[in-house]
Parts: sequence; structure tokens; C-alpha cells
Amino acid sequence: MQNIKELAKAAKTASYELAVLSGAIKNKALVRMAGSLKAKTKEILSANKTDLAKARDLPKAARERLSLNEQRIKLMADSLLAVAALKDPVGEVIEGALRPNGLWIQKVRVPIGVVAIIYESRPNVTSDCIGLCLKSGNACILKGGSEAIATNRAVYHILKNAAVESGLPAEAINFVDTVERKALTELLGLSDSIDLVIPRGGEGLIRFVQKYSRIPVIKHYKGICHTYVDRYADLKMAEDICFNAKAQRPGVCNAMETLLVHNEASCDFLPEMIKRYTQAGVEIRGCDKTIKLVRSIKKAKELDWSTEYLDLILSIKVVDSLDEAITHINHYGSHHSDSIITESYNNAREFLNKVDSACVYVNASTRFTDGYEFGLGAEIGISTDKLHARGPMALPELTSYKYMIFGNGQIRH
Amino acid sequence: MQNIKELAKAAKTASYELAVLSGAIKNKALVRMAGSLKAKTKEILSANKTDLAKARDLPKAARERLSLNEQRIKLMADSLLAVAALKDPVGEVIEGALRPNGLWIQKVRVPIGVVAIIYESRPNVTSDCIGLCLKSGNACILKGGSEAIATNRAVYHILKNAAVESGLPAEAINFVDTVERKALTELLGLSDSIDLVIPRGGEGLIRFVQKYSRIPVIKHYKGICHTYVDRYADLKMAEDICFNAKAQRPGVCNAMETLLVHNEASCDFLPEMIKRYTQAGVEIRGCDKTIKLVRSIKKAKELDWSTEYLDLILSIKVVDSLDEAITHINHYGSHHSDSIITESYNNAREFLNKVDSACVYVNASTRFTDGYEFGLGAEIGISTDKLHARGPMALPELTSYKYMIFGNGQIRH
Repeated sequence: MQNIKELAKAAKTASYELAVLSGAIKNKALVRMAGSLKAKTKEILSANKTDLAKARDLPKAARERLSLNEQRIKLMADSLLAVAALKDPVGEVIEGALRPNGLWIQKVRVPIGVVAIIYESRPNVTSDCIGLCLKSGNACILKGGSEAIATNRAVYHILKNAAVESGLPAEAINFVDTVERKALTELLGLSDSIDLVIPRGGEGLIRFVQKYSRIPVIKHYKGICHTYVDRYADLKMAEDICFNAKAQRPGVCNAMETLLVHNEASCDFLPEMIKRYTQAGVEIRGCDKTIKLVRSIKKAKELDWSTEYLDLILSIKVVDSLDEAITHINHYGSHHSDSIITESYNNAREFLNKVDSACVYVNASTRFTDGYEFGLGAEIGISTDKLHARGPMALPELTSYKYMIFGNGQIRH
Repeated sequence: MQNIKELAKAAKTASYELAVLSGAIKNKALVRMAGSLKAKTKEILSANKTDLAKARDLPKAARERLSLNEQRIKLMADSLLAVAALKDPVGEVIEGALRPNGLWIQKVRVPIGVVAIIYESRPNVTSDCIGLCLKSGNACILKGGSEAIATNRAVYHILKNAAVESGLPAEAINFVDTVERKALTELLGLSDSIDLVIPRGGEGLIRFVQKYSRIPVIKHYKGICHTYVDRYADLKMAEDICFNAKAQRPGVCNAMETLLVHNEASCDFLPEMIKRYTQAGVEIRGCDKTIKLVRSIKKAKELDWSTEYLDLILSIKVVDSLDEAITHINHYGSHHSDSIITESYNNAREFLNKVDSACVYVNASTRFTDGYEFGLGAEIGISTDKLHARGPMALPELTSYKYMIFGNGQIRH
């Protein structure tokens, strides 16, 4: 087995070299890596077959996530090129001031150091994270899921070789090549060498990482997103947004799981809305008031309000006030993405201010919570934490800063 | 004993109310709190006497830190007024963009929620932290050291009463009124209610908090600060800066602990410098090369390079290159504050880029690392972490952000 501690230490040493690498060299490496990935498509597909052969017992959706084809590998390469084209976050002067004593102080963006990414399934996470960490000047340590280990290993070796050929230190990109959980707990204890852990995957994995990590973790457990249809909503707009938020892609974290409707809008809105959902195969679980309006639906249990279905299932609750909606969202939600549909300026303002979530919407689908949709050009994850980064995370969120102070002999009195 | 879990839960509830409080109300409360503190000086001094009476066995420096007088209480009140005068960080639009699909996205500064501050000794930390948390819209939970509990309790009650009289929720300001460590470990487990822990005190306290906390912690363990006198240094400037960095106030975290001198500057620089230090009562512990120059000094042991003396003691090492100096600092230092003295543009540039510390100086004393000196107007601590905040922390570092997204019917395709 690899010596995880030595691997992390070497990554730390490499991170110092990486931190002062010019943007031109990093971009050249990214372009070469993208080329290698496309050139070695067959090698990756062959490794992917090995994983798929062992994955016969996995659910269809999981097999589908694991499976690669030429088109998907091309997309992975294109993502690396897109990252190369982004602005280098390192060295940005965030702010600065000349102090009365002549000290000239600058707050400058620098890489974090060593970032560990713990993830499941999708092999494109391997190439995406390697690209984003490299661009932001961080050394990375990847630990993927056992089901994808052959594919991840192939992608890793191809990208690492291309990086080294471009002049990058070999230990800038690292891969924990084992399926043992012991390796993960060991990794999570190495707070001297690793600066940040980003877990990506199911709630079980993320809770495990959070529990055992001695290193700062940025994460989101789940996306229990709400749409609240206010009494002053444009009901046609509300219908389109609510349908989109639930049904356009139900398996992702920014899809709606609970629909809240103001009592006074419920009669006009819910029967039609539920009809449209039902026709699209969405299972509805409603509160008592919802059931009074549409008798054919299931009754929601208490647990439904805190469940991330990630599926064509929706819980619906009729509320008596904006305040009740906000309280429900802050209590049962996951502080991810929540939307109000309203034509009332004051209600929009209150919802924006009081809902304690990373992304709060007025009159739009929660499905837009995404680094690309927000114009960040990339995404390494979404944070429902409040420290360091909140919401979609891109290159700046993979950086820290340092103060550079330019003096000419100042001493303190 | 207080029910710590209920206290934290109530703080969380209050934090929602506090988060949307207007700046005018917060400032009115701060002014009233400052007035109360001055009006009740006698009450505070009497409580302080109780603590001092029990503190007869403490070292003199610790008793001095604990001791209050009228002037010190006036300074505590003045700090609250200064915080009231600062710009409110809450609601600042950090950035924003209109996306091609018409979504108008704003990244807006919001309070973090509930901040716990774990600290030792100085009673002014109680009023400073209450003031900074209130101004930044956070509920706070204070847990001070046992040696200052009567003083802290008195200050807390006075400030809390003034806050409540100004219309603030009673649970916005909280105090763990016990000397039991059990209360601290319980507090550090309440990750559902508490968003951030800031420990302030000795390395032992901070390591304890880091070990037991299930909540994100921002901290600095110690300040092992370096000054590197380059071969191209202005030696007169170097002497003044090095003397200031060590001797002006040796007991603080931004004081220098190790002096590094380039071999080619050592003969001209060190004998005079050491003479000046010795005359000021500074004990020198040098490497072999330093001892060759000044035979009377002690030999530094390996442990000296990683020791925070917080006293009139200095370790000195002669190095052969800038590179050796940088490697020494990154290896033995605490990533706090380090300075190069040089007239070489290239060496200054390399030092600034490669030294991995929160504050990196050219031609100035490390003693300037401080929220007030940096022009932040306040300081709740200094972070040697890289996540969320690094270096002096003031009001913006006590905030998070949320994305507010203003749509007019957008759905995702």
C-alpha cells in the first residue's frame, strides 16, 4: 500500500513550487492534459469496461453515472481547455491601502496549498478537480470511489504524465490508489500536510468525512430546496418555475423537494399544478390542506419535510403566511437554494433577507444554482457551509490570501 | 448548571432576528452599552477585586493582565464607541452581475450566525467580542477563563442589560457561567447551533479547542515571527527594525522570535546588533556561526527554532542564501508574520512570493500585524489558518455571504 503520510508530505512540498508557477506554464499543462485525454480515449474506455464489469449489481442510475464513452471523454478534455481559458486567480490584488505611516499594504490572492477531494462515481470529477486545483496553484490528492477505481486511475496517470511533461512537479497531482477505507481515515488526519478537504458524493460519505476529518472541510450534505408560491404570485409563472424546479432534472441537489403555497393561492394554483406533475409522473405527498384540494394524493409524513428525494417525488404544504414559509424553510431546509414566486416587492425583500440559504431566488427556478449558470466559469462543488465559501465554488474559492506589506524602515511606537 | 444546548439553540433563534436588525439600532445599543460600562465602573472593579483575591498564586504578568482600573474600563467603553462608528459590514454587495438570461445575481454580505469565543485572562476581550459580534449581526456565546469569571460576569450582565434595553433580543449575547471544562467540550459539540468558534489564549487552550470542536475553528496557535537580514540590507535600518521587532513588546504574537542573517552581512551586522540587544536585557541563543562572531552568547538548540518565547529571548541563525532563509521560515515558523530587510528588488519579490505566512513584510517591523495598524478599525483575533480568514480579523471576517438572485420567470433548459 502507498504510504499516505509520505504522499501528503510530498504534495505539501510540491505545493510551494506550484504556488509560484506562472499562469502560462499552468495553462500549457492544461492544454497538453486535454490533448492526452483525447489521444488516449481507448485506454480510458478499456479501464472503464473493467469497472463496469464489476458493477453489474449497482442500480442502473449508478452504472449510468460510472459509464464513459467517446463523447464524455471529449467533454472532460473540453472542460480542461475551458479552465485553461479562465482568469488565473493567483496574484489578484483583492484590496490595498497606503497607511498614514507609509506602510503600503496589499491583500493578495494565493493558493490554499494542498486540497484533498473525496468523491464517488463520476470519473469526470477526477479530471475536473485536477484541472481546477492546478489552475488555482494547489496540489491535489484525489480519493475516488471503489466502483470507479480503474477509470480514475487511468485518467489520473494520463493527466499526471502530461503535467510532468509540461514541467510541473510530479507530486502536484496525487491519487490514493486503494479501495480501503483505512486510507481515507488516515488521509483525514493529516492536518499538517493537507489544508482543505472537499467531499463530493452522497450524504453518507460526506458525514463520514466530516466526522473523521482533522482538516477543514467544505461540503454540502444535501439539497432540500423549496419554492414558495406567495399569495401575490403570478400563477402562470409559478407553474412553469415549479414544474422546472422539480421535473427538469430531479436527481440533482438544486432540484426542488418541497413546494410551499400560500393558503389564498392554493385553490387556484394547486389542482392544476398537481395535475401537471401527475401527468409527468411526479408522486405528490401533501399536507392535510393539500389533500382537501386534491383527494387522490398521498399524505406527507413529518419526515418528508426533511427528505432529499432526488427523484420524481414532491412534498407540498399549504402555509398561512410568508412568515410560516420562511420559518419552515429555515427549519427543514438544507440552506442550499430556495425561491419565492411573488409580485409583491415587500414579500420578495423579506424572503431574500430572512431565508438563511446560500442562494435565495425571486421568480426563478432553483435549478440555476450552479457555477456555470452563475458565470463563474467552473465549479468544484456547492457549499452549504458559511465559512470560507457558500454556494457554488469555483477558482477564487480554491484560494486563500496573504498580506504583503511594503515598508521603508517602519518601526512600531 | 446552565443547559448549554438550550442556550445555544436560543442563540441560534436570536441570530435570525439579529441578522436583519438595522445598523441604527445596533449602533444605538453599542453607545448605550458603552455608557453603562462607564456608569457601572465601581461594580466592575468590585468584581475584579474578587478575581484578583483568588489569583494570588498567578504569575505577576497574568495578574497584571487580569487587573482592571478606571482607565482600562474607559478604554473598553471607548472601543465599543469605535466599533459603533465603523461601517456596518452586513448587506454590503460584494459583487454582482446580470446574466445573459436576465437573472440578476448579487453576492451579499450576511452575518455568520452564532459565534462562540473561548478565551483566557483579559476581561476586555469580553466587551470587545460582544461589540464586534453585535455590530456584525452575530449572536455570541462567551466562555472566559476561570481566573476572570467574576469580572467577565459583571461586564456581561451590564452589556447584556443595556442591549436588551435598546431592543435587542435577550439571547443575542450569551455567557457560559461556569468554570467546568465539561461545559466547554459540550459547547464545542453543538455544530447544529453554533457556526464558528474563535479560541483566544495560550497554545494549550487553542489545541484543546481544535481537538474537541465539531464546529469550524479559526485560530492561531502561536507567533514564531522571523526577520531576515539580507546580504543587500541597509544595516542601519535593519538594526532599528530588528530591535523594534524583538524588544518593543516581547510578550505579543507579532514580536520576532528568530533573527536570520545572510552570511555576508553577519560580520558587519551581528556584533553591533547583539551588543544592543544585550544592553536591553535580551538573551541571545545563536547558531555556531553566530557564536563564532560573539563568543559570549548561548548556543541555540534545535527546539529553539520552533519556540515562541514571548519574552526577551531571541534565537539567531546565519544562513547562506535567501533560499535557506525562506525554507527555514516555512519549516519552523508559524505562518504568522515574517520580514525581509533588503535593498534588492528581486530578493524582496522572491521573499514576498515564497514565504507562506499570513503577513509578509519588506523593510518593516513584524510588530505591525494588527487590525488597527492595518486600518481595519477593529480586531477579533489573528488567523494563521488559510480558510475563511488569514491574518488580522475584523468585521468582514465575522461575516459570510449569500447569493440573492432576482429573476422574472427564468426556468432552466
